[in-house]
Formats: sequence, structure tokens, C-alpha cells
Amino acid sequence: MLSRRAFLATSAAAVIPRRAWSTRGQPSSGSVGVDAWRLRARLERLSLFGRPDGGSFGSGVSRVAYSDADLAARTWLLSEIAAAGLTPRIDPAGNVFARWAPSGTSPDRPAILFGSHIDSVPNGGNFDGDLGTLSALEVVESCRATGITPRHPWELVVWAHEESTAFGRGTAASRIVAGDLQAGDLDQAWNGLKRADAIRRLGGQPDRIEEAVRKAGHWRAYVELHIEQGGTLEKGGVTIGTVDGIVAIHRYDVMVTGFANHAGTTPMNERRDALLAASRLVVSVREAVTARPGRHVGTVGRLEITPNSPNVIPGKVSMSVELRDLSETVLKALAADIQQRAAAIAADTGTDITFQLASRNPPALAHEAVQRAIDRAAERSGLGATHLPSGAGHDAQMIAALCPMGMIFVPSIGGISHSPLERTTWEDCAHGASVLAATILQLDASDTIV
Amino acid sequence: MLSRRAFLATSAAAVIPRRAWSTRGQPSSGSVGVDAWRLRARLERLSLFGRPDGGSFGSGVSRVAYSDADLAARTWLLSEIAAAGLTPRIDPAGNVFARWAPSGTSPDRPAILFGSHIDSVPNGGNFDGDLGTLSALEVVESCRATGITPRHPWELVVWAHEESTAFGRGTAASRIVAGDLQAGDLDQAWNGLKRADAIRRLGGQPDRIEEAVRKAGHWRAYVELHIEQGGTLEKGGVTIGTVDGIVAIHRYDVMVTGFANHAGTTPMNERRDALLAASRLVVSVREAVTARPGRHVGTVGRLEITPNSPNVIPGKVSMSVELRDLSETVLKALAADIQQRAAAIAADTGTDITFQLASRNPPALAHEAVQRAIDRAAERSGLGATHLPSGAGHDAQMIAALCPMGMIFVPSIGGISHSPLERTTWEDCAHGASVLAATILQLDASDTIV
Repeated sequence: MLSRRAFLATSAAAVIPRRAWSTRGQPSSGSVGVDAWRLRARLERLSLFGRPDGGSFGSGVSRVAYSDADLAARTWLLSEIAAAGLTPRIDPAGNVFARWAPSGTSPDRPAILFGSHIDSVPNGGNFDGDLGTLSALEVVESCRATGITPRHPWELVVWAHEESTAFGRGTAASRIVAGDLQAGDLDQAWNGLKRADAIRRLGGQPDRIEEAVRKAGHWRAYVELHIEQGGTLEKGGVTIGTVDGIVAIHRYDVMVTGFANHAGTTPMNERRDALLAASRLVVSVREAVTARPGRHVGTVGRLEITPNSPNVIPGKVSMSVELRDLSETVLKALAADIQQRAAAIAADTGTDITFQLASRNPPALAHEAVQRAIDRAAERSGLGATHLPSGAGHDAQMIAALCPMGMIFVPSIGGISHSPLERTTWEDCAHGASVLAATILQLDASDTIV
Repeated sequence: MLSRRAFLATSAAAVIPRRAWSTRGQPSSGSVGVDAWRLRARLERLSLFGRPDGGSFGSGVSRVAYSDADLAARTWLLSEIAAAGLTPRIDPAGNVFARWAPSGTSPDRPAILFGSHIDSVPNGGNFDGDLGTLSALEVVESCRATGITPRHPWELVVWAHEESTAFGRGTAASRIVAGDLQAGDLDQAWNGLKRADAIRRLGGQPDRIEEAVRKAGHWRAYVELHIEQGGTLEKGGVTIGTVDGIVAIHRYDVMVTGFANHAGTTPMNERRDALLAASRLVVSVREAVTARPGRHVGTVGRLEITPNSPNVIPGKVSMSVELRDLSETVLKALAADIQQRAAAIAADTGTDITFQLASRNPPALAHEAVQRAIDRAAERSGLGATHLPSGAGHDAQMIAALCPMGMIFVPSIGGISHSPLERTTWEDCAHGASVLAATILQLDASDTIV
């Protein structure tokens, strides 16, 4: 690691120049610089919770929502928020909110919300969620230290359970805030834990869960800083990504049914091999996806064979097909193409292939005004910015239903994420925090977002 | 199911005609008829051990070696053997032997061994192994009831762990008898069970395991009746298959290494998808196998992905490639072809593909004199016979190293095996037992097998 001196030297560019912000005729909000060193120290500290045995920063983290590691990390973070002079509040769904509305701020204006999450996938990285969460705290502290008085209340958020590792897809706590909760959802079980009890572990109140729901217009805007988790920014040599929107995700459960039989006694021409059909389908998914120009992606990430024994011809294969794009029209066309190819494979291999839409996340477009604010913030910080979609899901996707939303991306080295090898330079972490601060200040300066 | 009367009517042909056996100038051994009804009743009774909940005969069985179901079935079978007047003995490896050498039999002649196994694959069928085992008992009982005095001792065997489900390939107990046991083999673990302890469960004595080894010449001959497990006999309308030999099996463990990454944020052209590479390899294995004329087969029956999550590009795939033919030269050429195709796939997908020979079973040819005895037995029973290789492995493969070996096949309906749908008609079961009896009587009648 760099010495503190070397680090501060390399990260100097990350600190917003101490000159006045002039935003659309508003009076200057004063100058603000984020403390890149404090941000780094907090990222390193947070990485202790859920760190693998014998690891160090950069060894990744297993901090699955509702786990002991998650609870311990939240306790530490609540104390950091309190030490920064804010009063954290846990909503009934387990999300942490902390409002900053000092004297001089209009308490009746809708708050500007920003933050991220600190839960991780198993064997995840040290930046996914952590950077956006700790940067949000850094932004409030820096602005307060600079003597800024916000016009709107600012609200920090730490979303619970963003990764949806526990209780499966569609169980992120931000969904509850957006009003997406069905009867019986809190009775779901995961590793013997009921979802209601999991929320209680975080200090939430499942019995009053409906009080966590917010109406559209409750917040003025929501902004989230996050690592890109892809390689576009790094390849383009660009520091800041302005997110156009979060892609839609259509996930299919595919069942391939052949006939299990003895691998030694069944001639090749009498086989109805479910794995052969599934393998041809995996190849076809890639062919269908790459045959069409665009930024959409398609993945077979899960595949399970029955009986899965070297000496038995596979009788059944269950597999996932996941498609992502900003346009659901593209996703539907892709799925139709893939299903047509699957029908031909089924006929050719004597198998049956069925598709079931297992989950459908609609796209969430970032608000154009928030995108413009991010672009301008990057420009004024002397940083290049480019527009790109988010291929990954984020809490911002849910909150886009409630208020104008925007996301700021910083580069992921090698595009690696959901892995202990996930990396973002300290400089880019600080750049991201700076641009977040500048974006919030810009949004704060205007009374409407159009 | 058939009524007893209807059954006996349909299976009448299965009973060896009650006329004298005249074998190569030997005095007639008397006439013998197997009790088709008793055989059926025992097959039905045995099917209770490991039967799925709510199932009936024909619902298949999960009677993995060393399991509770296997132990219970062995206990029942030991009592049946004892009730038939034989004294079962469990060898140090857990195999059951029962010798029949009544007064008048030369105890110094090497015994003629026959039998099979009663363990199953998970969700296996009700005939694989069971038929040969219970027919062997039936043969002894029928011959004894007919007043036959064998010239050689006859020895019944119930091999332990034929399917090699537990502890993996190459751990069948008949291998130990053939002397194929390496240091450390008994320390292997499976589901938390040490192999030595598994053998102890069966009443074996792992501390005296070397006493289970038999020298070449210990037995005069070994004959095993088994279902074909393929569709050749049924398609040809032939009742009896005389096995030429058991194919060689070469099994490879293949490891495909790509790079696990986020399924939403990694563009298609930057992926190193281990499942895509593995899928192309599955297709290539089939192409390589079918490109070459012959009766060889090739199967990918096991495939496991890491991390196996719908939203993560697979980073690793571990899979089996199994090749079978009577000729090992063919198998080597096939493996070379497949590895060449794999190298091209690896280069094309940015993955690494490695092959490791996990196990190699050499072919085992059936002894010509035993084949002739089977042919003659079928002919004298008025049943058609044809010659064919066994694509499946059998204990006979191991015992072929110790004495002349032969196998009798009866038809599998639809060629289905290792499946609850495994079926052989009751008539064919009885035909098989009759031909087994007649074959043993023929071998018994001569002093040498050349």
C-alpha cells in the first residue's frame, strides 16, 4: 500500500478544487473538498467485517445481508454516522436513513437521497456498495465542514440486502420502500431463518412493514455512486460514467427432458441425451445474443443435471437463461429467437425443452436532469465522463419509481466484480465521491428537476 | 400383475424341460427345472429394500452399496441363503459367498462360481444385479431339489458394491478379490464414511483385507446372468445373449477454467465463459464418437459449474468424459481426437481445458469354452442366442483375471437400465435362470475348460 504521503499526492486530483461552485444563477454553495484519506480509511475499516480468515484489504468479503458480519458492519457504520453528527434511523424494512437538515435548510422541501448498500455476495469484493455508502457519508461530512447549508434536506441511505442473496431474487429491502411487497413475502425462509425475523435482526419492524413504503415525490431525487462492475470505463480511459439507465432483466427457467440411460449399453443413435441438447442450447444462446448488434447480454449461469453420474446418460437438465438490455422489446425478440433455436435442438435430439419466465425486472431509466447534473459535476471536477447503461441491478432501479434517479460509475479494474479480485483505484474512489458531492450540490441548488 | 396361474402359463417355456441333460459323454446329471414363480417372488421381495416412498415393484430402487437399504437387503438375502441350506460367509471385503458341496461332490476340485450383486445406482431399476443374484440361488435350490450331485463344488456369490456409487469408480469389492487394491484405498471417504468403516458395516474385515484376494485358478469358472441393459436382444427378438467380452472403459476428468464475472456488466466479447467452452466440448465428444464407425460409445454424464448462479458467468466447469469399446486402441484414438477438438475450443473461448485419465478399465474377454457352454445351454433350452459385447462393466470383468469367465444376457425392454423404468419380462427372467442352470451343469460335467 501507498504511504499516507504518497497516497495524498496521487489522489490530489480527486479533491474538488477549492473554488466556488456556481450553479445556474444560485449563490455559490461555497467550496468543498472530500477527504480522500478518510474515505479510504473507512473502506479499509469496513472490509474487516466478513473478511476471510487470514485475508487483508483486497481479499474480498462475505458479508451476506442479515449475517453476523452484516450486523456487525451496520453497528460500526451507525456509530460512524452518529459520530458525524447525524441521527441514524432504521426503517421498518431494516434500511438505515440519516437526515441532514441544519438550521437554514428548508425542512419542508423534499429531501435529496443518496447512498448505497454494504451487504455483499458470498466471496464478493471490497468496493461493490461500500464505496457508494461511505462516499455518501463523506459528502455530508465534507460539505458540513466546508460550511455549506443545503437548501433541501439531504438524506443518507444504507439499503439493506441489496444483493438479494438471502431469500432469493426480488427480496431487496429497497423494493419494500418502493411498495413492492406481496402478502406472505415476510414468511419466506432462508437457511431456517424467516424473512420477518431476518428484518428484526437488523432492527427493522416487520409488523409495521407498510410504514416503510414511500410515495412518489417523497424525495426530490436519488443519486447513487457505484463501481461500474464492467470494463467499459477502464477501456475507454474515462473516470466517470453517467448511467443512462439500469437494464431490464428477463430470466427463464429452462427444463430439458431427455431419457436417462446406461452410458455403456445405449448406442449413440438411440440416445435422448438431455445434456447434449442443453449444451447445444448454451451455444445457441450465445449465437442468438451475438447475432444482434447492441449492448445486450445473455448468460447461462446455472445448469444442473439429473442424475449427474459419469456412467449415466443425463435424463434431465435444469438451466437458467438470463437476458439483459435497456429495451424489453429487444429482450422479447431475443427470447423468441432462442426458443426457436431450442425447438430445433429438441426435435434433433429427441428431447423436450420448455421455457418459463422466472422473473422479469423492468428497466429503470435515469432522469435526464440528474444525468446532466452528473455530467456537469464531472466536467467541473476536470474529469472525463461517458454515458453507459448499467448491466447490473441496483437499488436505484426500485427508487426510480419514486423520484428522479441517477447513478455515477467509477472504473472497475479489469471489469471484475462479485469477486475478491474486484478493484477500483483509491484515486477513482475519491473522484467518485467528489463527483457525488458536486452532483448533490447542483441538484440542491435548483427547486425543480425537469 | 399376472395371476399366479396366468404367470405360470406364460412362463412355462422358461422351465427347463424335464429331460436328461447329456453332456459330452458324462452321465446325465438328471433333469432340473427352475421355479420361475419362486424367482419372481424373491425379485419382488428384494425390491422392497430401497423402494421409493409410495412405490411398487417397477418403481425402481435406491439401494446404494453400504446404505441402510443395502444392509437390510443383505440381511434378508443371507437368511434366504441359509434357508436354502447353504452357509453364507462374508469375506473380508464384504462379499457374500455360499458353497454347495454335498456328499458326493469332490471337495478338492476348484469351485464353479456364479452370482451377481444387489446394490443399485441411485434411482436404479429392479433387475440390474438382482436377477443374476437370485437366479444363482434358484439354480442351487432347483438342482438340489432335482437330486443333482455336482462334481465340483458350486459357489454362490453376492458381490458388494458393484455399481461403484460410493467411493467412486474402481472401488467395487470384486476388485479386491482380484487383487486390485492400493495402499490407502481403504482410507477413502464418501459422505463422511471411511471405506474401511463401510466394509465393516457389511460385516467385512478391512484389517484382514488381503485375505479376500484370490489367486488365479482358485475357481474353475465364473458365470454371471445379467440383464442386457441395452436394446440389442429385444430389437433382434432373441432371448439369450452370449457375451463376447466386456468393453474397456476409459474415464477422463476434464477441468474447464474460464473466469467468473458479473453476468450483467461483462460484454459478450470479454467473457471467458467456462460453461460455453464445456458445452462446445459436450457437442464435440458426440461428434468425435459418431464420426468413427463402430460400436464404441462416449458420454458426458457429469458436469458441475462453479459458482452455478444465474447472474454469474461460470468460471469453472468440472466434467467427465467416458469412452467405451472392446479395443483400447480405439479408445486412445478417440481421446486424442477429443483432446484436439478441446484445444481448439479452449483457444477460441479464452479458457483452459485439461484432461486427466481418472480411471481405466481394460477389456475382459469371455472364455470361448464358457461362451460355447452358454450357446449350447440356450440351444438345448430351445431358446435363440446371439453374441454381443457388454457395454456395461460387471464384476465378471474383474474375475476374468482369475478364471474362465462368461456372461448370459436377457433382454431389457426398450434397452432401458439404471432407471426405475428398467424392465425384463418374467418369462425372460426365468429363461435366463434356466440357461444359467444348464450352463453350470455343462461346465460341471467336464474336468477342464479349454
